Amino acid sequence: MKIIAMDSSGLVASVAVLEDGTLIGEYNIQYKKTHSQTLLPMLDELKKMTELDLSTVDAIALAAGPGSFTGLRIGSATAKGLGFALNKPIIEIPTLDGLACNLYGTDKLVCPIMDARRNQVYTGVYEYVKCGERPVTYQLKTLVGQCAVSVDEIARICNAFGREVIFLGDGVPVYEEKLSQLMEVPYGFAPAHMNRQRASSFGILAFDYYKEEKTVTAAQHAPEYLRLSQAEREKMEKCSSGN
Amino acid sequence: MKIIAMDSSGLVASVAVLEDGTLIGEYNIQYKKTHSQTLLPMLDELKKMTELDLSTVDAIALAAGPGSFTGLRIGSATAKGLGFALNKPIIEIPTLDGLACNLYGTDKLVCPIMDARRNQVYTGVYEYVKCGERPVTYQLKTLVGQCAVSVDEIARICNAFGREVIFLGDGVPVYEEKLSQLMEVPYGFAPAHMNRQRASSFGILAFDYYKEEKTVTAAQHAPEYLRLSQAEREKMEKCSSGN
Repeated sequence: MKIIAMDSSGLVASVAVLEDGTLIGEYNIQYKKTHSQTLLPMLDELKKMTELDLSTVDAIALAAGPGSFTGLRIGSATAKGLGFALNKPIIEIPTLDGLACNLYGTDKLVCPIMDARRNQVYTGVYEYVKCGERPVTYQLKTLVGQCAVSVDEIARICNAFGREVIFLGDGVPVYEEKLSQLMEVPYGFAPAHMNRQRASSFGILAFDYYKEEKTVTAAQHAPEYLRLSQAEREKMEKCSSGN
Repeated sequence: MKIIAMDSSGLVASVAVLEDGTLIGEYNIQYKKTHSQTLLPMLDELKKMTELDLSTVDAIALAAGPGSFTGLRIGSATAKGLGFALNKPIIEIPTLDGLACNLYGTDKLVCPIMDARRNQVYTGVYEYVKCGERPVTYQLKTLVGQCAVSVDEIARICNAFGREVIFLGDGVPVYEEKLSQLMEVPYGFAPAHMNRQRASSFGILAFDYYKEEKTVTAAQHAPEYLRLSQAEREKMEKCSSGN
C-alpha cells in the first residue's frame, strides 16, 4: 500500500511517499518561507520525480497537531483537498508521536518539545518497547500523551522517570539552557539530521493506523490544536471580564 | 558553516544542505531513475527552494564509496564539478559510516549492509559510545571498518560480538532470509524511514571531518570502490590465464 505523508506543524515543511516497507521519496525544508509556499510545491516536485499517480495512493497521513496554528491549517487544508479530490482517507498522526518516531529503537526516553510560546511547550514522553523477536521489533509507547505544559513541568516529569532522556524538536534551541539547569537525570539532544519533523516518521506510524482502521474522511478531519487560539482566548477573556 | 552533502552510492539519490546545527533541507529519492537524472536536478531544486547562494557553502560532502560503481562516479563527478567551480574542499565520507549514522545514539551494534553482487556485501560494524555529559553526546565508533565480504562472514563477525545488532541498507531485502538463518544473537532491521542512505547523515559526519581538516581538493578526490570493477577483474583474469 502507498501513503503520502505531510508535516507542516512546526518550522519544517516535509512531504514523503512510502510504499509498503520502502521510502520512495522524502523532501524536507526548514527555511523562512511559509508552508503555503513550500508544502504543495514540494509534493508536486516529489510527485513528478517519482512519476507518482495520485490515484494509486491509499491514504493521506499528516501531522494533525499540536503545532503552529497556521501551519496546522495549511497541512489540514492540503490533506483535505487531496482527500476530497482523490476520495482517500486521512490518517491523523499526533505531532509529538511522529517526532518521537525519529528515534526508533532507542533505549532512552524520548521527549519531543515544540515551542508553544507563552512559556509553554508542546511535549510528551515516549519509549520504545521490544515487541517481537527474530527479528527484534520495537513499538512506540506513550508514557505521557502530548500536552501543553511549562518546560519546568516537563523537566520535572522526565526527572521523575529516573532514566536518560533524549530531547528533540524546535523547542530545544529555545529551552536548551533552561533544561541544562533543570535536568537531574542524564539528558542529550538529537543531532540535526534527526531533531525535527520528518514526514516519513509520520508515514511509518500511518501504516499501523491504517491496519487498525484509525482513519477519518476528508470531511471529518480537523487539526488538534490542544489550546485555544489567541483570538479565541482574547474573546473569552473579554467576555469573562464583562467587556 | 554550511555544507552540501550528497549520496548516490546505492539505490537512493540524496542531497542535503546543513548549516551549523540545522538541517536546512534534504531531498531523498529511491526510484528507478538513474542518479544522473536525479542528483543534480534535486540539488538545483533544493538550492532554489532554500534560496541557497552556492558561494556561501564551505564544503561539499559525499558518500565516497563503496557502492554502485556508476553511482559513485556520478556522485564524484558532481562533487568534483561543484568543488572546482566554487573552489571548495571535498569531504569524503565512507559510505558505510554514513549509513550507520542513521541510528545515532543506539545502544545496539549497527551493521549496514549494501548488496555488492557476486555473493558479497559492503558492510562494517559500528557502535555509538558516550563521549560527553550534560548534555550526553555519542560518537560513532568503527568496530569493523568497511569491507566487502560474504553475508555468512559478516553474520559470523556480528555473532562473535554477542550483542544485539540492527541491520540496515539495501542489502537487507536481499539477505533478510539468509540472516534469519545465520544470526545467533538478537537482531533487527531499521524501519523504512531510517534504513537507506540519507545525505544529512553524511553531512553530520562531515562537520567533524571539517574540524579535523580531513578534506581533499576537487582534483584529489576519487571514489573508494573497495573492489576492482568488472572490466578490471575480467582483464586481470584474462592476463593471468595467459590469453
